[in-house]
Amino acid sequence: MSSEASDHRFARMAVIGVGLIGGSFALATRKSGRVERVVGVARTEATRAAALQAGIVDEVTDDPTTAVRGADLVYVATPLGAMESVMSAIAPVVRPDAVVTDAGSTKASTLVLARQHLAGRCAFIGGHPMAGSENAGPRAARADLFMGRTYFLTPTEDTAPEALGRLRALLTGIGAAVVLCDPQEHDRLVAFTSHLPHLLASALCATVAEASAGMEALGPFVGSGLRDSTRIAKSPAEVWRDILCDNRENVLMALEHCQQQMDRYRRAIESEDLTAVEALWQEAADFRRGLDEI
Amino acid sequence: MSSEASDHRFARMAVIGVGLIGGSFALATRKSGRVERVVGVARTEATRAAALQAGIVDEVTDDPTTAVRGADLVYVATPLGAMESVMSAIAPVVRPDAVVTDAGSTKASTLVLARQHLAGRCAFIGGHPMAGSENAGPRAARADLFMGRTYFLTPTEDTAPEALGRLRALLTGIGAAVVLCDPQEHDRLVAFTSHLPHLLASALCATVAEASAGMEALGPFVGSGLRDSTRIAKSPAEVWRDILCDNRENVLMALEHCQQQMDRYRRAIESEDLTAVEALWQEAADFRRGLDEI
Repeated sequence: MSSEASDHRFARMAVIGVGLIGGSFALATRKSGRVERVVGVARTEATRAAALQAGIVDEVTDDPTTAVRGADLVYVATPLGAMESVMSAIAPVVRPDAVVTDAGSTKASTLVLARQHLAGRCAFIGGHPMAGSENAGPRAARADLFMGRTYFLTPTEDTAPEALGRLRALLTGIGAAVVLCDPQEHDRLVAFTSHLPHLLASALCATVAEASAGMEALGPFVGSGLRDSTRIAKSPAEVWRDILCDNRENVLMALEHCQQQMDRYRRAIESEDLTAVEALWQEAADFRRGLDEI
Repeated sequence: MSSEASDHRFARMAVIGVGLIGGSFALATRKSGRVERVVGVARTEATRAAALQAGIVDEVTDDPTTAVRGADLVYVATPLGAMESVMSAIAPVVRPDAVVTDAGSTKASTLVLARQHLAGRCAFIGGHPMAGSENAGPRAARADLFMGRTYFLTPTEDTAPEALGRLRALLTGIGAAVVLCDPQEHDRLVAFTSHLPHLLASALCATVAEASAGMEALGPFVGSGLRDSTRIAKSPAEVWRDILCDNRENVLMALEHCQQQMDRYRRAIESEDLTAVEALWQEAADFRRGLDEI
């Protein structure tokens, strides 16, 4: 990386969507001293007020074009479903030397949109921080959210090396571990490691809800296992609706594989095959212990 | 509860299976001052040595009858599959005034075995602490494991009230919240709130293992969501083999219900029905938030 890139400071960052991710990115980059002024965009007055009050932004607006005008860095952290309208709105006003990146949980569709709307107008680089929380909104934002976490970037052959260098230095500066990867492979793997677990947690909640005779009777039966394994089901509905539908093919494939694994358990339990059940359990437990090593 | 029961002290407790649960029970009851001497039973020399070293027991043996002879309290904390052999072994030697209880995760089958082997020989009361950890063995034992946790007891019409009062006082004395319940209803509900989550976590691990191109490539894609939702898949294979097979009918029913909920997601995603996906998500998220209130 050139010293120009590693020392680079951005004068004005537009953060479109000042929720958990956008808000945390604003707090983290400002704290690192690499971003001077932050302009936030939010749809609702309540979120704009909360973002100002939490010290996340210097100014707020409901209009992406107002925020992006004059910005040398644009951070798009909206639900995936809003990505296209944001890109088409900012395309006419974005500075040609601006670095534009997003925080969407899928990367292939965002790159298609960026090619359509932003090609030749700015340097767009897709991004996805493996950081988050089931809590949403600017009040949940934390300056250390990206510390030690993987931050995927999916540059293409069209990506200007200088822009990539600047963004990379900024991310490294907030403690993130930058990993460059192919957008298709990214979307395939996150379907298994993130989208499927979220979907399962949600389906598990629906199953338990259906089985119970009301919360009061259920209470004593709820242990830390259920709580921990369904915590992510509390994540925002709009965000997850968009992710599951956007990454449809990969998610459906992961879901099918998981149902096959459940069928293997079902058959082994039906036939009271203790050896088979134990073998299935042991193999999965060994894999899970392996995750603790990485 | 009579003051006799609430003040009662046990002179000699046999703990059959000095792993996480049995070991923690020994530590907790001795700390509470309600149990004087603890004799532990473990199959392997390594576990016996670890139990002695961890200060869990005063003496150890590999023979349940040796431990139970003279004991006024017997705590059976083996995997479910060992329950029958333990009960038939101790039946000839157990003191007629002894309180015998177990810590098995299912209650119906254990009661059948107790009726078969122990009826008229001692006071048996089925128990199940909603406490645990993915860590196993005497080294994982903690005196505060049951503190604030639900502890199910499933007395029947044959249960002597005095024995129930003594056991209840002991459990209350170690900080557990005793809940009396019907064994069949217990087994039905834990299939949904505990056994299904464990099975899903295990199936999820198998699915991710299958999808990945090895641990090294997978590493950056593993976030806290996957880790938290699969933590319980590390639980011991022998214990979970026995639970899933013992509670077969309830587990298969819970599994079927869950697959139906996954199918609802599948259909909504296949048809790109954003409204339906969001409604499924929202309903589950509301239920999960409700769990935080109980």
